[in-house]
Amino acid sequence: SPFHHAKNHSSVQMVLTSLCFGSIYVNNPHLESMKEDILYHFNLGTSSHDLAAQFGDVKFVCVGGSPWRMKSFIKYIAGELGLAGPDAEYPNICEGTDRYAMYKVGPVLSVSHGMGIPSISIMLHELIKLLYHARCTDVTVVRIGTSGGIGLQPGTVVVTKQSVDATFLPRFEQVVLGKPVVRSTDLDGDLAEELLQCGKELAEFETVIGNTMCTLDFYEGQARLDGAFCSYTEEDKQNYLAEAYAAGVRNIEMESSVFAAMCKLSNLRAAVVCVTLLDRQKGDQLTSSHDVLHSYQQRPQILVGHYIKKKLSFYTRYSCQ
Amino acid sequence: SPFHHAKNHSSVQMVLTSLCFGSIYVNNPHLESMKEDILYHFNLGTSSHDLAAQFGDVKFVCVGGSPWRMKSFIKYIAGELGLAGPDAEYPNICEGTDRYAMYKVGPVLSVSHGMGIPSISIMLHELIKLLYHARCTDVTVVRIGTSGGIGLQPGTVVVTKQSVDATFLPRFEQVVLGKPVVRSTDLDGDLAEELLQCGKELAEFETVIGNTMCTLDFYEGQARLDGAFCSYTEEDKQNYLAEAYAAGVRNIEMESSVFAAMCKLSNLRAAVVCVTLLDRQKGDQLTSSHDVLHSYQQRPQILVGHYIKKKLSFYTRYSCQ
Repeated sequence: SPFHHAKNHSSVQMVLTSLCFGSIYVNNPHLESMKEDILYHFNLGTSSHDLAAQFGDVKFVCVGGSPWRMKSFIKYIAGELGLAGPDAEYPNICEGTDRYAMYKVGPVLSVSHGMGIPSISIMLHELIKLLYHARCTDVTVVRIGTSGGIGLQPGTVVVTKQSVDATFLPRFEQVVLGKPVVRSTDLDGDLAEELLQCGKELAEFETVIGNTMCTLDFYEGQARLDGAFCSYTEEDKQNYLAEAYAAGVRNIEMESSVFAAMCKLSNLRAAVVCVTLLDRQKGDQLTSSHDVLHSYQQRPQILVGHYIKKKLSFYTRYSCQ
Repeated sequence: SPFHHAKNHSSVQMVLTSLCFGSIYVNNPHLESMKEDILYHFNLGTSSHDLAAQFGDVKFVCVGGSPWRMKSFIKYIAGELGLAGPDAEYPNICEGTDRYAMYKVGPVLSVSHGMGIPSISIMLHELIKLLYHARCTDVTVVRIGTSGGIGLQPGTVVVTKQSVDATFLPRFEQVVLGKPVVRSTDLDGDLAEELLQCGKELAEFETVIGNTMCTLDFYEGQARLDGAFCSYTEEDKQNYLAEAYAAGVRNIEMESSVFAAMCKLSNLRAAVVCVTLLDRQKGDQLTSSHDVLHSYQQRPQILVGHYIKKKLSFYTRYSCQ
């Protein structure tokens, strides 16, 4: 069972609702008895929408914090895949809510998740149920985000090997009914290697593979000196970042651990691709110009766009043989 | 010192940058040596903006998850305070970014914070620095939000007495340099009583005072049965909610603990006022109509609007004597 804490809940029969290779798992026996499932934060539902018709062809889901960035990604990928008509518009599928934004073109879905573990976790619960209700199969999910780098040139793209916590361990602690449950943050190693390879093929910017530290806070949680509160010295900060580097950490962000844990539990092939906006050993504030930061933020999109194009052209060739 | 962990960092001289009654504290000696402070997620900064001119008159800050709701609040309060001209528009002060939205009218600032502790924490770090740079004094901050209720009629407004964690303790654990630091989540008791009194004066909806449980997750963290994962029974859920009720918890949301902790550290008078959208003992999904949910969400705005009007009319009378 993908439930690491199943032994603590032996009274509950674990239902892997689908066992076929490539299917999405929901690990929740209660869902079967619900007449309707309202995906509240998407403003979608099984009674109000034909989810299989609307989403059944999804093979790639890209997620990122900013709704603007996820809209710009869908435009970009539509162009790359030759799916952008001259007057193409990309309406927000979640237009009835301002919690998340969602866009779709062909087999690609682009969804914003806000900032931090709780925000992405709500989105992922509802995304996993959406893909399940839509009977999607063989889905790859990639988080394309921004991060602070350690010992890297700003603008470097980091493909995550392992997502680690603030003590550099590859684990995510989820509180269930007031009790901590530890889940693995393993990501798909083959997918990470394929993405690294895409970076090499593009040769437009530096791409590396490394561990990603996921924190619950941007300031004190990431050893920044410029928050409203700071009770440690520059030396304390540098020592902490050096320890992180020694543990293989190359960048720091705020969503990868729960993303990895939830995708693993749902049988989703998952990767995290984040650009570093600055080198945290050299500073804390984002002083680069708007244009420079904007161009950095396009890099994960370009990398993942290249990967999706490659995969789809392979599938097309394969299915024509 | 407001730093609960100061004893662990005796090498750092704690600087309470301002000691005058009513001033905003930043507890960070490093800020003094920075030439410029970029409030990145607001797209504001001390070099690019005259923060004192723009924000120096702020006395009330209302924060809530949804950017749409915070825009609707500024329109509402402008009307209530007689500050809305016939062609009044309320531009988003943070229009260069989609991380947060911010609106201002007279002494009232309205800011969105997204969902979850990490998202509101980034906003609060930058808000506290903004108020400090703008030399604001005697500021009251109120979170106006939505929540799940326990044992209350949907639509009831809960003024938070104590914000408690998933084990019902009034504490917030902040990780600093990889180590947990426990902070108090005390809120202003007098302010909570004043807000409860406002609810009684309005007599438009039920208002109660009670503890608020703050969780890191909306589904498993709040004992919901309708997430992508669920490893417990309906009975387990009901037992957990009953324990919460016995500990004085009347509603559950995802931001109050860090909000209370950070406001306390900064000398900000703070309150949490959330409407309950459903009774969690009776269900998990939000099945009420859009119109009903929308009218519920206006209740914290109406309550806090009444409070601000009362306070400002008192100040006006007092300063005219």
